Amino acid sequence: MRRSSGGIRMVVARQLGITTLLCAAMEMTGPAAGHAQTANSPMLEVPARAVPVPTTVSSQMAKIIGLPLRTNWNVLPKTGEEWKPVADAGAAAIIKNIPGMTERLHVKVEKTMIDGVRAFVVTPDTIPPDNRNRLLIHVHGGCYVLNPGEAALPEAMFMAGFGHYKVIAVDYRMPPEAYFPAALDDGMTVYKNALRTMDPKNVAIFGSSAGGALTLEMILKAKQDGLPMPGAIAPGTPMSDVTKVGDTFVTNAMLDNVLVSPDGFCDAGTKVYANGHDLKDPLLSPVYGDMQGFPPTILTSGTRDLLLSNTVRVHRKLRQAGVDAWLQVYEGQSHAQYYRDDTSPEAKEAFEEIAGFFDKHLGK
Amino acid sequence: MRRSSGGIRMVVARQLGITTLLCAAMEMTGPAAGHAQTANSPMLEVPARAVPVPTTVSSQMAKIIGLPLRTNWNVLPKTGEEWKPVADAGAAAIIKNIPGMTERLHVKVEKTMIDGVRAFVVTPDTIPPDNRNRLLIHVHGGCYVLNPGEAALPEAMFMAGFGHYKVIAVDYRMPPEAYFPAALDDGMTVYKNALRTMDPKNVAIFGSSAGGALTLEMILKAKQDGLPMPGAIAPGTPMSDVTKVGDTFVTNAMLDNVLVSPDGFCDAGTKVYANGHDLKDPLLSPVYGDMQGFPPTILTSGTRDLLLSNTVRVHRKLRQAGVDAWLQVYEGQSHAQYYRDDTSPEAKEAFEEIAGFFDKHLGK
Repeated sequence: MRRSSGGIRMVVARQLGITTLLCAAMEMTGPAAGHAQTANSPMLEVPARAVPVPTTVSSQMAKIIGLPLRTNWNVLPKTGEEWKPVADAGAAAIIKNIPGMTERLHVKVEKTMIDGVRAFVVTPDTIPPDNRNRLLIHVHGGCYVLNPGEAALPEAMFMAGFGHYKVIAVDYRMPPEAYFPAALDDGMTVYKNALRTMDPKNVAIFGSSAGGALTLEMILKAKQDGLPMPGAIAPGTPMSDVTKVGDTFVTNAMLDNVLVSPDGFCDAGTKVYANGHDLKDPLLSPVYGDMQGFPPTILTSGTRDLLLSNTVRVHRKLRQAGVDAWLQVYEGQSHAQYYRDDTSPEAKEAFEEIAGFFDKHLGK
Repeated sequence: MRRSSGGIRMVVARQLGITTLLCAAMEMTGPAAGHAQTANSPMLEVPARAVPVPTTVSSQMAKIIGLPLRTNWNVLPKTGEEWKPVADAGAAAIIKNIPGMTERLHVKVEKTMIDGVRAFVVTPDTIPPDNRNRLLIHVHGGCYVLNPGEAALPEAMFMAGFGHYKVIAVDYRMPPEAYFPAALDDGMTVYKNALRTMDPKNVAIFGSSAGGALTLEMILKAKQDGLPMPGAIAPGTPMSDVTKVGDTFVTNAMLDNVLVSPDGFCDAGTKVYANGHDLKDPLLSPVYGDMQGFPPTILTSGTRDLLLSNTVRVHRKLRQAGVDAWLQVYEGQSHAQYYRDDTSPEAKEAFEEIAGFFDKHLGK
């Protein structure tokens, strides 16, 4: 990230939620404060604003967009042991919703082990004939530290329910149980297991956030290991660059009510998982990987998403590599809000788009 | 736009470029200032920030993104007569670049009249065999009041040069010469002329900003008039909703260095063109039109674009209508910056994507 004399100001502005303190911060900026920018300091001074909930989304999505900034977005556990109670508390809140979702989405969930990896099989009540020989592998989000056990399930259930595909949700190892590259290894174990009985062209991989990154990382790893490519992938708002490079890390900070800031909880979780490994390694920041030969890819994001740049940069890079890559961006949504509420029309729309893309590209 | 007790604050924040005054404005916000939002007032208070030029774009694009806010973005001419000298001055600055572009893009430009409508024929030095029976019609941007004469040409020249298609650029009538629906009528005249000699499937229509809106408006009008659909269209960052509805009108205000604000020069120009006509008419705000039966569509925008919501809302609406619609969003770009500099790799990339989309969908 480019740093000029305005760099300190930016950091200050990012860390503060309290507007009265911001005035003090702005007074420190000196004579440049009245100008958008100067030749020597190409910083754009964007004023504070009060942002209403857009009127262009469903009532369900308006509720999600209207939520305050995530509680404790700036609490930053430093070890796997410190993350465990945070992850367990978050998981308990999510798991409460699973029975209702099971019913509304018409899916059933079974716990399983696949070559030593914990997983769930999510099966829709009805699988159309075209999908009977197809399998989707899901890698969940949560900054590589959140959503253990059944908390891994919501997005897999959305996909199974709206798309009518059988899904295996990988409950991969996370800190403090294991560190990089454990999540990736567990995903690969499940993929390799599927290859033993399935035509790779009938398999897709998907997931959002860390799961979007893991989807891309699995393809990079499969290429490294000489494994066949799956038929298609759907990385949603992938954490494709965890080095904080990308424009919307700045422009959507304090606007995205989920991730909130590039210096927030998600960055802290990723660093704990990385465990000292280079964050620019494409197996942690896949935007830096070679995307030649990637399978057809559908990407999903929102206009307020802190990772909108992470998403569109992957889209451009895939296109530059000649990959059939498709982008959907949803109005007003912050990070991964398309799988927050299975009753929102935007959730149905996003997953039906992904299902249609898979239907077009997977073997039968 | 939803207005609560925070509405006044937002307007104040939008109009002020001077951060010291913003502190006073923020002090007026009262007890809610320290909180992201309250239950009764779902406003998200986004603090001021200094935004650097992203490091994730080409050096050419970095220069464009690093420009200060457009000069006189908040000067608002109220009549066609007041706009004329503004448009003429802007055109003179653009026209200076035409000879260099002609050479670099390997195109030639000829002035013509088509059934009474002023136009230019832009022909690339080399037209590949597949494109010899294809024609693109270009409708330029400029808020319906800017870019008269040769100033209409740059995007048409980018398309002809990077895409190797013959392009007719419509130099449609604008205020004070004529008002709504003159621009649309002139576009339709050129389209109907093309239909007399061309298979409609071999014709595409494209343009950005007001030209993106006009592209969509022409399809709505062609449907109304029972004309055949063209083979494909490419509305770039369309002014698809001129009623100021859409999330990025707020979230990207004062960040987009081209349009700057929903209450700036572009809104003023559109109102002069509309001349009292209902701004919600789909022939001025095409996002409200019926998009069933639209031809394959490729949309282009940027992460800082004030019209990113205008773009993605059209994308979603097209997809909901079952249209083969494709979205490209570029890192860090404000409104329509993909056709600012023909030497930027991002310009080549954007127009080659559009050219490839046309190649896939047009008849030969």
